Amino acid sequence: MANKKSLESIDMEAPEFKDFAKSMVDYIANYLENIRDRPVLPSVQPGYLEKLIPSEAPSKPESWTDVMADIERVIMPGVTHWHSPRFHAYFPTANSYPAIVADMLSGAIACIGFTWIASPACTELEVVMMDWLGKMIGLPAEFLACSGGKGGGVIQGTASEATLVGLLGAKAKMMQRMKAEHPDWDDNTIVSKLVAYCSNQAHSSVERAGLLGGVQMRSLKADDNLQLRGETLEEAIKKDLADGLIPFYVVATLGTTNSCAFDRLDEIGPVGNKYNIWVHVDAAYAGSAFICPEYRHLMAGVETADSFNFNPHKWMLVNFDCSAMWLKDPNWVVNAFNVDPLYLKHDQQGSAPDYRHWQIPLGRRFRSLKLWFVLRLYGIENLQAHIRRHIGFAQQFETSCRSDERFEIVTKVQMGLVCFRLKGSNELNETLLKRINGRGKIHLVPSKINDTYFLRMAVCSRFTQPEDMDFSWNEVSEAATEVLKEQQK
Amino acid sequence: MANKKSLESIDMEAPEFKDFAKSMVDYIANYLENIRDRPVLPSVQPGYLEKLIPSEAPSKPESWTDVMADIERVIMPGVTHWHSPRFHAYFPTANSYPAIVADMLSGAIACIGFTWIASPACTELEVVMMDWLGKMIGLPAEFLACSGGKGGGVIQGTASEATLVGLLGAKAKMMQRMKAEHPDWDDNTIVSKLVAYCSNQAHSSVERAGLLGGVQMRSLKADDNLQLRGETLEEAIKKDLADGLIPFYVVATLGTTNSCAFDRLDEIGPVGNKYNIWVHVDAAYAGSAFICPEYRHLMAGVETADSFNFNPHKWMLVNFDCSAMWLKDPNWVVNAFNVDPLYLKHDQQGSAPDYRHWQIPLGRRFRSLKLWFVLRLYGIENLQAHIRRHIGFAQQFETSCRSDERFEIVTKVQMGLVCFRLKGSNELNETLLKRINGRGKIHLVPSKINDTYFLRMAVCSRFTQPEDMDFSWNEVSEAATEVLKEQQK
Repeated sequence: MANKKSLESIDMEAPEFKDFAKSMVDYIANYLENIRDRPVLPSVQPGYLEKLIPSEAPSKPESWTDVMADIERVIMPGVTHWHSPRFHAYFPTANSYPAIVADMLSGAIACIGFTWIASPACTELEVVMMDWLGKMIGLPAEFLACSGGKGGGVIQGTASEATLVGLLGAKAKMMQRMKAEHPDWDDNTIVSKLVAYCSNQAHSSVERAGLLGGVQMRSLKADDNLQLRGETLEEAIKKDLADGLIPFYVVATLGTTNSCAFDRLDEIGPVGNKYNIWVHVDAAYAGSAFICPEYRHLMAGVETADSFNFNPHKWMLVNFDCSAMWLKDPNWVVNAFNVDPLYLKHDQQGSAPDYRHWQIPLGRRFRSLKLWFVLRLYGIENLQAHIRRHIGFAQQFETSCRSDERFEIVTKVQMGLVCFRLKGSNELNETLLKRINGRGKIHLVPSKINDTYFLRMAVCSRFTQPEDMDFSWNEVSEAATEVLKEQQK
Repeated sequence: MANKKSLESIDMEAPEFKDFAKSMVDYIANYLENIRDRPVLPSVQPGYLEKLIPSEAPSKPESWTDVMADIERVIMPGVTHWHSPRFHAYFPTANSYPAIVADMLSGAIACIGFTWIASPACTELEVVMMDWLGKMIGLPAEFLACSGGKGGGVIQGTASEATLVGLLGAKAKMMQRMKAEHPDWDDNTIVSKLVAYCSNQAHSSVERAGLLGGVQMRSLKADDNLQLRGETLEEAIKKDLADGLIPFYVVATLGTTNSCAFDRLDEIGPVGNKYNIWVHVDAAYAGSAFICPEYRHLMAGVETADSFNFNPHKWMLVNFDCSAMWLKDPNWVVNAFNVDPLYLKHDQQGSAPDYRHWQIPLGRRFRSLKLWFVLRLYGIENLQAHIRRHIGFAQQFETSCRSDERFEIVTKVQMGLVCFRLKGSNELNETLLKRINGRGKIHLVPSKINDTYFLRMAVCSRFTQPEDMDFSWNEVSEAATEVLKEQQK
């Protein structure tokens, strides 16, 4: 029985929805299949959009065809095309057809899976998908729900949230221990002594987690290979302990944003364990590569970690947001966040995770559908092929770069990222980047390590072909020729 | 030019995507239009799903038709149907055809709008949509970007995050003031003295914001109408000041989860202003009703607020997640969270908001598309009709309930929520709720205020018709008859 419309209908009706949605499907396919023909970076100025649309919402409904027409008129001129093969900024963000379709279903079911009973399928598919994924990257069984222990996975929104959740769990754990050891210390006394650690190459969100969590986050010097070493961590811990402080949390980054360097988890982890501090692994970008066995040596030491996080929404073709986090003992997080009003209680509490306790927000979408669709419709082998292809493209660009003596490679090329620069001053390279982005054909962002400014060429698009990498290299090379010519004048 | 496939294709191709996505469109329309025929609450037991699917991801790709077939086999048996007219639990969550289509486009563009340059359209549409929405609910101009002042809106994921963001902004503001007044106090001394306030009727996420922010959150007694009063707040502030503490933040709830009570913002706001503490308004559910002028008296005093939040993803037909937050002076939040690595810098900084500084996560989806599509394809008048219709349905249920002398209405019926119970003991009402949910035809959750246990009947579905409300009332009535008969035995 279709829903009766005995009241005057105010909603879009199903037949109209079908026309609209199918028209959007065609638009999307056309957009993505031809994305490389659009200028990757928009040329609009701040404030462009408000001039194109009314200053107030309409009183009466408009037609969906008018809305469709406005996508090209209003939206597209201001879109940075993250999925163009010409886009090499930041790190990739995922986009695949299976994930888009899964999100449609998620939007239709539109449950808020804060407890098991609020939609059992939403919680249970997430539990099983996090096991599938954990097995795919070779996580130790202790992290998996299917091991029957305490461990398990959860989908967070972003790696920033995972780092913060880990920090808050670690804080709760250390608070409890300190209160037991020093019954006379109050909360504020303990919090004021807490110290967390990360590499000076860690992502800005790690520093921010310290700010948000109200604790000191000590930035430790990475070695010449830009890796945080166990020795460095241990020295810092010893010094802080000698000063009466309380080390409680360390973030090891596998694949830094600056240069895709890998902290030495095999050294950091044992030091963390020795001093009883929570070890969190941030493998936001590079973690996807661990689905390929040949890269798992880079996560050596993972068995020492308390929590592990990577973003399938970066490099594993699952649309944002899908940040996979595993915890060996989620109870520290669950107990830290637990507030339990009657309207959220249910009879099955305890026999399945209530994910609201595992995260910062209360509400959550049915995000595991995206993982399920992508894993089934690609299969592990094609996801591995995707990773290996991107790594191959980075090596292709590296080869081009090394064959041109004007350029230098700044750091070891890892995964799908090439850090390079013109031999010469930072200013020269700043000029080069401005020129490249100004030409409007490809888009890169810079970084800086130890006062050396360089360009980051990230392989981002699933549409990228070898010819695209040649195109991007030619753009870089031509821009360099222009800039160097002008310098000589 | 379509993308060449010179490498062996590993991705789903566009024609297959079109078939798959259009098949999903038909599935979605069929699911939603016939949703009332499904049992609203699943009867599965914890662990049901893992038995239905393999324990590992497949190596080779499967076909999309197999995936489609598994939706009914694996997912639907475990779905709680939040959009069924039989669903009366919690509060509504939004679901509309225009929002689903907008999310498809958001998934295709799949930009991460952390800075303006990362996709100008993503930031700019959000700025303008938050102005549209602010005007629709009659927010003072100070909150709007178009006023040319500091104020503006941002889309957060959830009201929990908005409450936390407000708290962290307030904390930063008070820290700065205290450091200026007491140069000898260190951070920990100040933090240990900070006190925030809310009603004992506030949502659990407010208490949690205090936990996460590491500050005291004082729960103040609401009056007999379950409203937090200005006098109560002022007494608490005076006592805390006398004790050497530092009041810095108060959350006023407009539409509590327990009973949809409205704190007296017209009293709380002036008290907050008098003592220079940050006033945050949590109107998560009820805020949507302010698009109808006849309900705006319930937000009297809004001009005294520093931040205001409501969830279009609850009651305004914009799919989760879309939590609208406005700040009079976002700089307190921006400066509290600001970490600024080179790879995120851009030339237009300062001339448009970089929303990454306004929120907990770094990444963010293009969520304003959902608002734009819904506002245009419904129009203000139909959205108002939607709100008024739901309020009418609650009144219809109230009338049924009042006409049955076995029942009592517990609190004043406000918006789309009826709090009711059988005259008699809490145990009797617990039995009644179990019976109602056990019969499997409708779904409600309970709450408790001052030791009185009661049932909450929330109007949730956009498909609801007057006959559905009669159906739900009959279910309640029949369950009551059964329970009372058994009691008499």
